[in-house]
Order: sequence, then C-alpha cells, then structure tokens
Amino acid sequence: MAGPFSRVHKEGKRQMHPAKGEKHWIIPDGYIPPTSSGSLTSHESICVLNVSSEEALLNLTIFFEDREPMEDILVVVPPRRTKHIRTSTLNKGGTPIPVGVPYAIEVRSDIPVIVQYSRLDATQAENALMSVVAYPIK
Amino acid sequence: MAGPFSRVHKEGKRQMHPAKGEKHWIIPDGYIPPTSSGSLTSHESICVLNVSSEEALLNLTIFFEDREPMEDILVVVPPRRTKHIRTSTLNKGGTPIPVGVPYAIEVRSDIPVIVQYSRLDATQAENALMSVVAYPIK
Amino acid sequence: MAGPFSRVHKEGKRQMHPAKGEKHWIIPDGYIPPTSSGSLTSHESICVLNVSSEEALLNLTIFFEDREPMEDILVVVPPRRTKHIRTSTLNKGGTPIPVGVPYAIEVRSDIPVIVQYSRLDATQAENALMSVVAYPIK
Amino acid sequence: MAGPFSRVHKEGKRQMHPAKGEKHWIIPDGYIPPTSSGSLTSHESICVLNVSSEEALLNLTIFFEDREPMEDILVVVPPRRTKHIRTSTLNKGGTPIPVGVPYAIEVRSDIPVIVQYSRLDATQAENALMSVVAYPIK
Repeated sequence: MAGPFSRVHKEGKRQMHPAKGEKHWIIPDGYIPPTSSGSLTSHESICVLNVSSEEALLNLTIFFEDREPMEDILVVVPPRRTKHIRTSTLNKGGTPIPVGVPYAIEVRSDIPVIVQYSRLDATQAENALMSVVAYPIK
Repeated sequence: MAGPFSRVHKEGKRQMHPAKGEKHWIIPDGYIPPTSSGSLTSHESICVLNVSSEEALLNLTIFFEDREPMEDILVVVPPRRTKHIRTSTLNKGGTPIPVGVPYAIEVRSDIPVIVQYSRLDATQAENALMSVVAYPIK
Repeated sequence: MAGPFSRVHKEGKRQMHPAKGEKHWIIPDGYIPPTSSGSLTSHESICVLNVSSEEALLNLTIFFEDREPMEDILVVVPPRRTKHIRTSTLNKGGTPIPVGVPYAIEVRSDIPVIVQYSRLDATQAENALMSVVAYPIK
Repeated sequence: MAGPFSRVHKEGKRQMHPAKGEKHWIIPDGYIPPTSSGSLTSHESICVLNVSSEEALLNLTIFFEDREPMEDILVVVPPRRTKHIRTSTLNKGGTPIPVGVPYAIEVRSDIPVIVQYSRLDATQAENALMSVVAYPIK
C-alpha cells in the first residue's frame, strides 16, 4: 500500500536525466505549401526531443529571402517529452509565417535538445515527404 | 577435406571486426501512419548496422508529447548483421507504440552501431518515403 | 519622431551577428529531372542560410561523371537572409547545368553558412521530395 | 596560338586538388524495390564525389539480416568526378545484391570522398524519393 513515506522513497530514487544534444540548430529549407488536396493537409513540423528532467525553452528566428527576420518566437518543450511543432502555428505578435515563401529556421534552446525537420507536401492528390536532422552549431 | 584441424586453422585466421559508430542515437520525428491504401503498408523502420564480430544489445526509449516515456525496449542485432526494425513490432509488456501519435526514439547500444530511420507512408494510394541518419550523441 | 540623432542611437545599439556554420559543403547527388507533369515543376534547390550581418559570397563547382567540372559559379547571399537557389538558374558563361545528368555540387563560401539540398521530382503526375543537409568539410 | 611550350606552361600551373571528406562511410538502410510501374524504374544510387586529382578506389561490403556479408566489391571513381552507382549493377563474382531484401552498405575508400545514398521507389504508379548523406566513420 502506497503512503506518504513510500512516495518520498519513490521520489528519492527518481533518476535525474541530463540534457543531451545541442543548444543551437539550423534548418535552411523551410517552406509551407500553400495548398492541399487529398485526405491529408500539407504541413511542416519542427520535431524536438528533450530527454532531460528539465523544461527546455526554445527561441526561434525565421529568416527570409527579401525581408527582415522574425525573431524571438518562444516554444516550451516539457521535461522528458517530444514536441512536433507545426510551423503554421508559429506567430510573432499574431503574424504567422507566410505560406508559399522560401524561408529558413534557427532554433536556440536554453538546454541541449535534438531537432529534426519534416515536411508533408499534399499539394497534389498524393503526398510527398522529406525529412532532415537539423544542422547543429557547436 | 575439412577436419577438426582445418577448422582450428580457419578460426585462427578469422578476422575480428571492431565495432564502429556510436552507442547513443536520437530520432526526434517518429510517427506510425494509422492507415494504408494501395499495395504497400505504411511503416517505419529503425535500421541498425552492427559491423562488429560481437552481438549488439539495443535499449530503446520512446518519448511522447503528453505522457511518460516507454522505457527499456530491448532488441538484439547479431554480429556482422543489419536489422531493420519495424516500429510496429516493438512493445513494452505487450503494449505497442500507439499509431497516429507523434513520438521520438532514443536508441542506446552496448557497443557502437550506426542507426538510420526511414518511413514509408502509404496513407494515400501512392507511397511517400522519408529517411534520416539518426543523430549521434557523442 | 525619428531624427538623425535617434538613427545614430538605433545603429549604435544594432546587434552585430557573427557568421555560423561552415565555409565548405558537398552535395554528391545532384540531378535536374528533365520532365514535369501535373501542376508543379521538377526542380532542385540549394538552400543557404547566412545568419551573419555580412554578405556571403558563394563559389560553386559542379562535378560530372564524364567531363571536366564547371567552376567558379558565383552567388551572393545577403546578410541575415536565406537564399533558395534553383540549380536550373545557375550557369557558367551562359551554359546551364545539363538536365537529366547525374552531377555533384561543391559550395565554398567566404564566411560560414549552412547549406541544405532539396529536390522536387514531378516527372510523374504526383510529386516526390527528398532533402539532405549538405556534408560540411571542416 | 598554343604550342608545346604553352602546353607545358599550362600543365605547370595546373592546380593539384587535395582529397576531401572521409575514407569510411555507412548506409544502414539499403533496399532494392523488387517491382516498378509507371515510366521510371525503382533504383538506389550510392553517389560518390571525388574532388581530388587522384583516382579513388572504393571497397564495398554489403550486410544482410540473415546471411554472411558480401565483401570486396570494388568500384573506381576517377579524379575530379562524381559517380552515381546503381546498386543493381553491383555484384560479387557475378552474384548481384538480392532485390526486396533489407540490407546495409559499408563504403571504404583509399582516399577521402563524400557519399550520399538515394532511393527512387516506383513500386506504385507514382514515384517516391528518399536520400541521406551516409554516416562518416572518423
């Protein structure tokens, strides 16, 4: 039977997991497909894994070909969790990333994490997929 | 004619292959597509190569967005063999990885190996492919 | 109201961003699909991110299977910008990269940048995508 | 007007290009799709770039899930050339890599090169693409 004492005991033996990966990642090829057809919706995801026992605070910068970067987009990844961030949900002061425009992504994190980028393009009836592990700046 | 002596001789000259790669790999973007159509089945594979003359014992952790990780899923890769592990075959005490849910994969191995991750999405009639070499933690 | 003084003030506090990444990148698998069908056009992009406050000057070499390399193709990436370079727009003295021919790409930059390569193949009615972060020579 | 003297002069100033990359590369996920439909043929390519002024001699090992590796498959990449090697053309003593079977590829080279792996799957009417830069063993 679990009482207060056994709970203390359980917490006492809880393993602390250190952060792994890097604090700075780059994805040069970002693009939100403007249209979808078929049963799936075109989208991109920035997939982050935080293996540590502490929360990770991400700070994203979005770079363009012809205008100033969007800076300081903040995202939290809880301890021992992954977060697959749809880029269409990101915004700066209510302004989202424009669709159909080439851009690039810089991810900074206060603790080491690992970042992968994937795109599903459903512009045509059948979907196409691409994925890369982001480039770590060491 | 091969007798005991020639066998000893053969073993004596057998080349020992050292392990190559890393012991710790991360795949942030895991996803088992829930449906298939057409002639192929949607699936993911964790592709591991063990170039060494010794068996590799893998220990996998599966991370989620909204629940505790599944830990200590064990897989053996024989010496001088590759193993392309279907993620749908992995389970912890009989519980498989849920389909249609974003997750992430951590692979630990007792000896260095090399890990790649590939996904075939056959949600629609035509298949889509993506692949990444996993991120090595050094 | 912004006058000369406030402009000086603004420039005084402007953050200088250092260059990040590497100066030398390789993409072994280049290929411009010769035909397109459907609503999208087959193309490849060399996606470059320059996070620094200075312009990056790229020098590209194109390698072939059966002829001498095309050298000294120059491309500029402005400060704090990304550039997604369509390989079909590259040329040396008016001669473009031939379509339907396997080739490879070497990118040199005068300051560190980050390079990714993506291909959209629309040879058939539905598109296929692939992408890799280029290999950095350190 | 170019005579013998000017030729000597030209050769005298010819730039020697050093080898770049690594001598040892791994691709864990190899697979030759057994069937094709539509206008393209399913295939895989091992894409190698040799930027140096000297020939590169590759030695490939093919690993399987359930049998001994195929060793010592040799391929030459000329100086300052790329070679996109169709895996279906590789063989050991006339025996090709079996189709429809998971395998893995180890590439050793006598001088540094850069290796990328790409697969076109045309099992169904529309093609799917995947590509990774191989994992370098340093």
